[in-house]
Amino acid sequence: MNNAGKTKVSSTELSEAIQVDSATIRRDFSYFGELGKRGYGYDVEDLMHFFGKILNDDQLTNVALVGVGNLGSALLKFKFHQSNSIRVSCAFDVKEDIVGRIVDGIPVYPLDNMVEQIKLQQIEIAILTLPAQQAQQVVDQLVAAGIKGILNFTAARLTAPDNIIIQSVDLTNELQTLIYFLHHNTDNK
Amino acid sequence: MNNAGKTKVSSTELSEAIQVDSATIRRDFSYFGELGKRGYGYDVEDLMHFFGKILNDDQLTNVALVGVGNLGSALLKFKFHQSNSIRVSCAFDVKEDIVGRIVDGIPVYPLDNMVEQIKLQQIEIAILTLPAQQAQQVVDQLVAAGIKGILNFTAARLTAPDNIIIQSVDLTNELQTLIYFLHHNTDNK
Repeated sequence: MNNAGKTKVSSTELSEAIQVDSATIRRDFSYFGELGKRGYGYDVEDLMHFFGKILNDDQLTNVALVGVGNLGSALLKFKFHQSNSIRVSCAFDVKEDIVGRIVDGIPVYPLDNMVEQIKLQQIEIAILTLPAQQAQQVVDQLVAAGIKGILNFTAARLTAPDNIIIQSVDLTNELQTLIYFLHHNTDNK
Repeated sequence: MNNAGKTKVSSTELSEAIQVDSATIRRDFSYFGELGKRGYGYDVEDLMHFFGKILNDDQLTNVALVGVGNLGSALLKFKFHQSNSIRVSCAFDVKEDIVGRIVDGIPVYPLDNMVEQIKLQQIEIAILTLPAQQAQQVVDQLVAAGIKGILNFTAARLTAPDNIIIQSVDLTNELQTLIYFLHHNTDNK
């Protein structure tokens, strides 16, 4: 909307744009304080800056990626769209043909140097795209290296101390969920 | 557990294995009927067969993939782990160097033939890994071709008739959520 030169927006317009009902938008926004004015709506630029700050969009977050296989390679190339604030700044693997090289602009270090590099670069977030069997062992090392958040693409159920946040994206699960609802659609709609 | 030769399991053991509290497991299971016996627990093989059937694990689901870019290529190689019941059986793209070829065992058809092939193969599920700007147009075609479920990896907000299920996986969102909680951890724990 900002790109389109729009300066103010109502919750109804936001609702149409993002397909979340307007009461939810108003309620969710209200948790953050008085963002809009009754009868006026929201100032587009103010909203952008406010949520940009909330989401730390105003500063660069460096992220490590562990496991440069198929999915890992794709994520190295992945533009975390619209976002200039997230960057994969280093990757780790064991494969001799890529370790020590720069792949898609990102240096790939040997897994043995992971703890050292993550400490050195003070990275707090890691993406896991390695085989599930190795995931827990790597998580233990990541935690020891100071990682605070993990985006887990493996099917492994990971354990970590309570202060570590693990977000899992299980692609098989997503597809199975879809298939389940497809076959039980009549019960659920 | 079945692989390990275990024949029965309690909700407490399941709870430890998958890190969901046992009361939730018992309650969730109970929605499906009487799966266990009080004081005995659950029969491992019975559970496997029951949920396999629920999840349609006993029959092969063919899935189409639209957009063989970085992420799409990775998903063509992706083993939907543990699952022999999901298979990407065809892919679609516009790039001349891959269209008409078999990539990682999967035929890549021109996008222009998408509707025809999906009808012919009676595919009901599609994975979207194409640029966001083209997503809605492709969704409209997929719906016309008979697709019932869509796994959307683009950042586009898609609209489709009510009977179509759209599951979105937004990788940037996942990372931003992680970063948000990292910086607001003290408030949330």
